Amino acid sequence: MPTFAHSFQVETRGFTDIHDITGEVSGAIRQSGLGSGIAVIAVPGSTAGVTTIEYEPGAVSDLKEAIARLAPEEGGYAHDARWGDGNGFSHVRAALLGPGISLPFRGGELLTGAWQQVVLVDFDNRPRQRRVEVQLVGE
Amino acid sequence: MPTFAHSFQVETRGFTDIHDITGEVSGAIRQSGLGSGIAVIAVPGSTAGVTTIEYEPGAVSDLKEAIARLAPEEGGYAHDARWGDGNGFSHVRAALLGPGISLPFRGGELLTGAWQQVVLVDFDNRPRQRRVEVQLVGE
Amino acid sequence: MPTFAHSFQVETRGFTDIHDITGEVSGAIRQSGLGSGIAVIAVPGSTAGVTTIEYEPGAVSDLKEAIARLAPEEGGYAHDARWGDGNGFSHVRAALLGPGISLPFRGGELLTGAWQQVVLVDFDNRPRQRRVEVQLVGE
Repeated sequence: MPTFAHSFQVETRGFTDIHDITGEVSGAIRQSGLGSGIAVIAVPGSTAGVTTIEYEPGAVSDLKEAIARLAPEEGGYAHDARWGDGNGFSHVRAALLGPGISLPFRGGELLTGAWQQVVLVDFDNRPRQRRVEVQLVGE
Repeated sequence: MPTFAHSFQVETRGFTDIHDITGEVSGAIRQSGLGSGIAVIAVPGSTAGVTTIEYEPGAVSDLKEAIARLAPEEGGYAHDARWGDGNGFSHVRAALLGPGISLPFRGGELLTGAWQQVVLVDFDNRPRQRRVEVQLVGE
Repeated sequence: MPTFAHSFQVETRGFTDIHDITGEVSGAIRQSGLGSGIAVIAVPGSTAGVTTIEYEPGAVSDLKEAIARLAPEEGGYAHDARWGDGNGFSHVRAALLGPGISLPFRGGELLTGAWQQVVLVDFDNRPRQRRVEVQLVGE
């Protein structure tokens, strides 16, 4: 089968909560039986995103600080003025990071570095149950 | 493996002009007859990009402000000193946001959230007619 | 053949060293014999990324400055405090830019603008030999 889909849930706490989801992505590739192709990893919703990082507490904390500088929690957001959600910063952060990434795989393995993990980043201002979508296309 | 291509034009005003293009992307998926796969949405050119956001005026305005902080219009850009284009800020903003995104679709539907729209962001310093490219791969 | 893979090496100097890799990507598409589809261009490792920009010295220098503002070299990084690598800024920059991009191709040509190049950006704090992965899926 040339395409393969895998969905899974992640419980998050919001406020730039960062979860290592590499195992789920690698597992989907193995389960698909595909050797070579493209994996898209995306999170539906406008207050979360996906990227890669060396998943150790230092780098994770550094990324959170950099994102907080990009779009501080207290920023006088027009989204909050209109809707009262209080998560204007979450929307801006998610739009800047992007909703998903695409990575190649080969020989049934994701072509990432040894110290590079795929991470879900939840920017919302409350706990969420997120669904992550992995879509593979290849042969 | 089946592929499907759809191009369309968007008239923009530049200066981080943000357009909801979700309808065109969803329409391409329906028109393709494909059920499941990957959609790449990209804009040719080095002064525009694509991301997703909740497309309501507050969040859109908040994103514009955050991007203006990232790379202000008046920044003493080397690109402007060399070429006189006056759009050095546009190039930097576009390179940071990225030229396109990839999203999964399934059952003929884009796997985005209910309040999440695909948007073209034009960073140039003048009105442009942009061509957006949607490329689907799937089955 | 519905998928095609091409890997190549780039010698970098680190510190946001930016290399034009468009020729390698276009060459891979021609070599594949594929007409239409999706190209994913990614760099394994957690201190480098891929984007597009008009590859002229002004815009390249402007991008480097904007990235230095996003995550300055001297930032009191927790990653450095734990591991002593001194490249905490590299990890943050790479996570924000993203590990790779996806672009459509058609008629055997990458659908990028005339003044838009695909670039590898190495954020590490030392020279590296990077492997870039180009993965094509199409028909």
